[in-house]
Amino acid sequence: MQQEEKAALLAQCQAQYAAFQAEQLKLDMSRGKPSPKQLDLTNGIIDVLSEEDYLAENGLDCRNYGCLDGLPEAKRFFAPMLGVDPEELIVCGNSSLNMMYWAMSLAMTNGVLGEKPWWKYDRVKVLCPVPGYDRHFAISEFLGMELVSVPMHENSPDMDLVEQLVREDDTIKAIWCVPMYSNPSGVVYSDEVVKRFAALQPKAKDFRIFWDNAYCVHHLTDHPPVQANLLEEAKKVGNENICYMFASTSKITHPGSGVAMLAASEENIHSLKKALSFSTIGYDKINQLRHLRFFGGKFENLTEHMKKHKDLIVPKFQIVLDTLEEGLGDLGIATWSKPQGGYFVSFNQKGYAKRIVQLCKEAGVVLTESGASFPYGIDPEDQNIRISPTYPTEEELQKAMHVFVCCAKLAALDA
Amino acid sequence: MQQEEKAALLAQCQAQYAAFQAEQLKLDMSRGKPSPKQLDLTNGIIDVLSEEDYLAENGLDCRNYGCLDGLPEAKRFFAPMLGVDPEELIVCGNSSLNMMYWAMSLAMTNGVLGEKPWWKYDRVKVLCPVPGYDRHFAISEFLGMELVSVPMHENSPDMDLVEQLVREDDTIKAIWCVPMYSNPSGVVYSDEVVKRFAALQPKAKDFRIFWDNAYCVHHLTDHPPVQANLLEEAKKVGNENICYMFASTSKITHPGSGVAMLAASEENIHSLKKALSFSTIGYDKINQLRHLRFFGGKFENLTEHMKKHKDLIVPKFQIVLDTLEEGLGDLGIATWSKPQGGYFVSFNQKGYAKRIVQLCKEAGVVLTESGASFPYGIDPEDQNIRISPTYPTEEELQKAMHVFVCCAKLAALDA
Repeated sequence: MQQEEKAALLAQCQAQYAAFQAEQLKLDMSRGKPSPKQLDLTNGIIDVLSEEDYLAENGLDCRNYGCLDGLPEAKRFFAPMLGVDPEELIVCGNSSLNMMYWAMSLAMTNGVLGEKPWWKYDRVKVLCPVPGYDRHFAISEFLGMELVSVPMHENSPDMDLVEQLVREDDTIKAIWCVPMYSNPSGVVYSDEVVKRFAALQPKAKDFRIFWDNAYCVHHLTDHPPVQANLLEEAKKVGNENICYMFASTSKITHPGSGVAMLAASEENIHSLKKALSFSTIGYDKINQLRHLRFFGGKFENLTEHMKKHKDLIVPKFQIVLDTLEEGLGDLGIATWSKPQGGYFVSFNQKGYAKRIVQLCKEAGVVLTESGASFPYGIDPEDQNIRISPTYPTEEELQKAMHVFVCCAKLAALDA
Repeated sequence: MQQEEKAALLAQCQAQYAAFQAEQLKLDMSRGKPSPKQLDLTNGIIDVLSEEDYLAENGLDCRNYGCLDGLPEAKRFFAPMLGVDPEELIVCGNSSLNMMYWAMSLAMTNGVLGEKPWWKYDRVKVLCPVPGYDRHFAISEFLGMELVSVPMHENSPDMDLVEQLVREDDTIKAIWCVPMYSNPSGVVYSDEVVKRFAALQPKAKDFRIFWDNAYCVHHLTDHPPVQANLLEEAKKVGNENICYMFASTSKITHPGSGVAMLAASEENIHSLKKALSFSTIGYDKINQLRHLRFFGGKFENLTEHMKKHKDLIVPKFQIVLDTLEEGLGDLGIATWSKPQGGYFVSFNQKGYAKRIVQLCKEAGVVLTESGASFPYGIDPEDQNIRISPTYPTEEELQKAMHVFVCCAKLAALDA
């Protein structure tokens, strides 16, 4: 670009930015939250139970204490979501994050499957595919673990590196994975990658894959990918104790009052249930019943329900992608993901992420903190921004993306 | 008692016992569970919300993520239960046990108020007033703490001993207390005792009182005792960070789908909320709304509701006390509590607890395991049995208590 051309574009962007600032916008694209319209899809769950409807199929009174690992019919209902058998599942309360925290904290205090507690080791490390989910990394850091970055490639984390690190370093006790529509890059791990995870031979016998399948039914296309199942593959190679798998209905029904689940090998589940019995007598079974009734106990009704979410979300992703393409497509200064599912668009513009987020903020558009997707909040290339299109209305989102594109150009031009 | 008289009584008891066995009873007095009739009192909560009723007073959408420490109006509503200010309260999910586990596990992994993690000490001890609540002791044991028994007296744990131990031994990091209608002995700590707890000067700066006020509104009399408030007393002596207080609606509304709460000084709450943010985005706010709507947002409606529980429970406690008095009152072989609230009658017959529980079991009456109320499950005098009268019907309970009295006599006579 010629100097003059650049100066003219800069002046144009600055004028546009000033105009945005004058509008005193208040737009939020910071978190992957469903919009109110998405939540409306599930309002029927709030009053789906009559006051006489509190018995489980086996006659258990769901109002009372007990049933540590969830209603049998809830286990049957949710098992297909993680592709496991009902006896490989614990159906929990409203937060899968809470189960991940618990499982990792438990490994720290009590170890896994009879191995010694992680805190008895001088160092405990966790592999963090980057960019990744800030709350995952935060759990491990809070519990005193060292965060080790592993780069994400197109179909997975760098598997050669993962295999090498866990084979050689017995202080590495875990890895965080979002295998489908990963947060934020939207990567779908290929079957080959799932199989390599299943076959990992870690030096640490008490190593665990924390497999957060948060977006396993959150497709944006009509013909979603079908992914190999980690636990199934791990069983095939006699390695079934290597993983804990998590999911929830947070972005299916209502995030505040959904149902979370934890799946693992029967041996892991047996051990986890024993540990769980020290921390609760049981989760909210009435709310499990609500989910069963709302979906008529049929998993295909849940997948149908997800299509209604898709119909509301797809136009928003389209706004993000179209606006980025229109505004930045020709400039060659940035790249972004075109996800087939999940909740995010991952945007990369080397050296300018912090600046763009700051400029957006000063124009009233809140994005996830730059660096949030990296261990210790440090993006070494200062390049990644996580865009969450779902919460704002289409109008708000369109406005916010215009601001975003303007800021992205401004950052590059005004450097 | 003469040998002959004794032999005759023994023969009579044996005959009676054989008759009970022939009935093939299946009665359960093992846990402090509300009966179905008690649960019926709260059925209206299941469908109290319409599907449009999901907004908090401040307009917050309770269906979505967020609001880590509970709805503001839920904090205001539940604050009187623990006698604290709303800002000293976190309103949680369905399990106060879960919050106790979390708070203690957190102290192990991350310490309290910036002090070093408990696991970094070679030894970590917890004081356990005995007899006490098995699940409390189990949490501490599971987390690797040493359990130190402290005897319960009429109005409290042995406070001289408690004061001495915490003053002298900095490996003592906590004590478990059920200050009102303690589990199982029904003791109500006197105001003087509450004040002594509030004024404790532990050698360990990171010592915490785990104050489980599980039965704070669970009275069996029309004129219940009013107890000094621990946090208030602790504030008076500049010691407000010494305690965590817990309660729940488990035995007020529905145990499986109630609301738990954690109260502490503002400084503790600030620190706990920060830690909590790593393990959840928020608890089930829709269920908090249900509780607010069911009680019309008025705490006096909750205390009125508790009178309905009382009306169902008091006759059951009367059956237990009458049957014990009638069958054992003259014999001088046993003593038992006459609680003014809570869920248990504590029965003592030195040297025979195990035998009585076993005899009952073989006659189809399940009691809490003998020894359960003691650290490591060991009752040094083999004397204490926890009787839980609430769950069975009055008819079942009457039958079970006849069996119990028969077994108590049999154990003593057949020794």
